[in-house]
Amino acid sequence: MKVAVIGGGHGALATAADLALRGRQVRLSLRNRERFAEVFRTGEIVLSGVAGEGVARLAEVTDDPRDAARDADLVLVPMPATAQAEIIERLPAGPLVCLLPGNFGAYPAGRRLATPVAETATLPYGARFQGGNSVRTAMRAHHLPTGVYPAAETENAVRVLAAVYPEVEPVEDALSAALLNSNGALHAPLVLMNAGPIETLGAYDIHVEGTTPGVRRVMAALDAERIALRRALGYTSADWPLSDYYDDADWFYGPGAFSTVQRKSVWREPLGFEHRYLVEDVGFGLVLWSSLGRALGLPTPLSDAFVDLASTVLGRDLRESGRSLERLGLAGLDAAGLRARL
Amino acid sequence: MKVAVIGGGHGALATAADLALRGRQVRLSLRNRERFAEVFRTGEIVLSGVAGEGVARLAEVTDDPRDAARDADLVLVPMPATAQAEIIERLPAGPLVCLLPGNFGAYPAGRRLATPVAETATLPYGARFQGGNSVRTAMRAHHLPTGVYPAAETENAVRVLAAVYPEVEPVEDALSAALLNSNGALHAPLVLMNAGPIETLGAYDIHVEGTTPGVRRVMAALDAERIALRRALGYTSADWPLSDYYDDADWFYGPGAFSTVQRKSVWREPLGFEHRYLVEDVGFGLVLWSSLGRALGLPTPLSDAFVDLASTVLGRDLRESGRSLERLGLAGLDAAGLRARL
Repeated sequence: MKVAVIGGGHGALATAADLALRGRQVRLSLRNRERFAEVFRTGEIVLSGVAGEGVARLAEVTDDPRDAARDADLVLVPMPATAQAEIIERLPAGPLVCLLPGNFGAYPAGRRLATPVAETATLPYGARFQGGNSVRTAMRAHHLPTGVYPAAETENAVRVLAAVYPEVEPVEDALSAALLNSNGALHAPLVLMNAGPIETLGAYDIHVEGTTPGVRRVMAALDAERIALRRALGYTSADWPLSDYYDDADWFYGPGAFSTVQRKSVWREPLGFEHRYLVEDVGFGLVLWSSLGRALGLPTPLSDAFVDLASTVLGRDLRESGRSLERLGLAGLDAAGLRARL
Repeated sequence: MKVAVIGGGHGALATAADLALRGRQVRLSLRNRERFAEVFRTGEIVLSGVAGEGVARLAEVTDDPRDAARDADLVLVPMPATAQAEIIERLPAGPLVCLLPGNFGAYPAGRRLATPVAETATLPYGARFQGGNSVRTAMRAHHLPTGVYPAAETENAVRVLAAVYPEVEPVEDALSAALLNSNGALHAPLVLMNAGPIETLGAYDIHVEGTTPGVRRVMAALDAERIALRRALGYTSADWPLSDYYDDADWFYGPGAFSTVQRKSVWREPLGFEHRYLVEDVGFGLVLWSSLGRALGLPTPLSDAFVDLASTVLGRDLRESGRSLERLGLAGLDAAGLRARL
């Protein structure tokens, strides 16, 4: 099976290496030739951590998504939602595309490509590039809830995807999958309720010191807004509440993932506000929740709050650049109308 | 001139000591006999810092506001807005009452007492109780914008007040004074955008490490909502923008106050969310701004955001317990209607 991986960084390296080590023929496209010079030079990635260990040999490394995607059976796009529109423009129609995660990107992408597009609720790996051609994984998804646009193609798409990710679990449609991504409920409070130390303290881990009872109360209330939207839209697949992660239950990344993150302080790193934690998780997550709330007549005060806070901190209105029903051409529909479009 | 000081802690000690050292006859009422046992025992307060130095001899120290207020020419209430309702119930009608600060408390207090009530925009002192009978002041107001309910009594009330606080500067009415209190714009971001370190780091000063460019952008946007409300209500007295404080301009506490706070790290202390920074400044500040915004058709997204965030962190809806037009019986009025009631 020939797989194209279209990526930008950490996640793409982990995806390509993991799949190659598991016997797939992988063509990898990376935008940054300079940063990943060693990957381009060797055609290899050294993978370490929980997602496997070894030197993965790739079929091709290119900076052109078209090259990577030619003759592919499956095109994986482990990129932030902010990059989706540009990448989709450069993909051929034909092979199944999967966005990891999607943030409801499958809808505009599928319409643009006139081909089925799948999207997962979460990233398959928690990975960090280690320099050279090395990438290290700290987490690996045990469950990959996945929705497809159009929803009628779900069975076919999931059959293809399951050949590389047996963890794929189909849900109703792309919007249901998007509403299983709780990164907005997770990262917006983590970043914005730790804005001071992020800007002044170098060695501060929002996932450890920054994860406090007060911050978690806000996360839980935000996640409840997400789940209320799922109810209003009539989705009955599992809600994957964020509290299961914090309770070390069997969540996306398996049992005990939170304790691992805490114990190993996996992500102790300098942060800025121009990070996907805000630009993607708020701009393409909470902005969508907020617009769904308006469409469905459901209050989403904390989603609204974090959209306004993040916009103020970033100095631009994320509603203008992010993902909302209005910007997707889906304004004015009720729950039934929305689902009928998917 | 006989002055009653009705207080709870830091501010009341500083007020009583400062006025006694400046020759007023001061009766002080304190709620907590245990914490301030030394003040009760000696009848004296040792004042230090920028508001003066010396041992102040009080005419009386009591735990009954009625005792303190008997025969007073002026009753000063340097207490959080959360305590106003209970205190007002225990005051005699007759002498002028001044709330420091008011947060629009002069309106319900004046109606309840059927006597003029003044309110300042800010606390006259930045003070901290030092144990025993000592209090230390780090800041002293150079300007005390003051409004009176009813507004027609402004001239008389300001004449009385100016005898103890020459810094008093009359503004249009009690609501104008309340809308010069920018503590909500200051403290809500300082606390909630530093929630992580407040809960996990002991020696953290939100006024120093926690005052970062991102936090200040949010403060500025919140303060702009306050000033927009003042415009919509037609107030023309000075707006005292919070940015003047951060620019070390001649703000309430005189030029250079921010640099002093930063340099001396005046308020490096353990904090919790059950602090007047949230309970008063959000519950009686931003809740009011938010309700004014609704009444005047003016969006106040960041005031709303911090009311929701603070409510979530505290585990109760501050709109239910705080100060809003609805709870003051002033719902449904436009700007002219509101001002006509004052």
